[in-house]
Amino acid sequence: MSYFDEMQVGTRRVLGSHLFTRDEIIAFARNYDPQTFHVDEEAAKRSPFGALIASGWHTAATWMKYLLEERTRDDAERRARGLPVPDFGPSPGFKNLRWLKPVYAGDTITYATEVREKLPSKSKPEWGLLMAYNTGTNQHGDLVFDFESTVFVRRRA
Amino acid sequence: MSYFDEMQVGTRRVLGSHLFTRDEIIAFARNYDPQTFHVDEEAAKRSPFGALIASGWHTAATWMKYLLEERTRDDAERRARGLPVPDFGPSPGFKNLRWLKPVYAGDTITYATEVREKLPSKSKPEWGLLMAYNTGTNQHGDLVFDFESTVFVRRRA
Repeated sequence: MSYFDEMQVGTRRVLGSHLFTRDEIIAFARNYDPQTFHVDEEAAKRSPFGALIASGWHTAATWMKYLLEERTRDDAERRARGLPVPDFGPSPGFKNLRWLKPVYAGDTITYATEVREKLPSKSKPEWGLLMAYNTGTNQHGDLVFDFESTVFVRRRA
Repeated sequence: MSYFDEMQVGTRRVLGSHLFTRDEIIAFARNYDPQTFHVDEEAAKRSPFGALIASGWHTAATWMKYLLEERTRDDAERRARGLPVPDFGPSPGFKNLRWLKPVYAGDTITYATEVREKLPSKSKPEWGLLMAYNTGTNQHGDLVFDFESTVFVRRRA
């Protein structure tokens, strides 16, 4: 049985937790999103947010970082148990990304992913499509970020 | 008249063009998306893509970089002409992001944004919501990336 066929709809995995530090928020935002409330601590105090917050793209890319770390752990565990290791392909994109609450410097965001649907690819029978609902939750239990992702997973070589 | 009221639906702006170098692709992916086809040139040759490609999150964050550069130029021009400078707030999120084609090392992506709709905020009369359709196109004229964004723009102080 391939990894794709083995995946269960409804399975939820916590991927890990990330502390968004002031320095990391500023470093990412200087490269990709230099709005004052992402790069300037003093100006951020006078913004509608009241303090320095992470770029939404930083929050999103960090979800990917923790997804990959979980995949690496999972692959190692599967290899140790003699199970087939999944072969993930590209993502055609995603839907309905929401930045629901600011991520402040000092916040710790816990990322999770839940399998929502799986579909065989019509045009590429060796691949399946995996749809997931992904979240980021802060240390107060508030949902700060969510989106629906899609990724190709190989069904057979 | 505020910047929000002045904005015309249908206005399209080219934001700029970005060369995705091998080193930059690998540097971003090492931090946020260390899949082999984003970080390992040799392994990428054996992947379904056939060569090193940028993380989709890198392609997306770079759109933001060029949006901000265009905003900075536009603000300076407006100040020089004595026009009000827009005050952008947060984005509640976006929809239907598609990674349509790979972005290879050496590709140059031209980013653009087009105003699609503007809505007064019901709950916050001092803010309006601006909806835009955003694209990335490679040097061959192929659309590689698009999504629909939403951002708050201040209507009055």
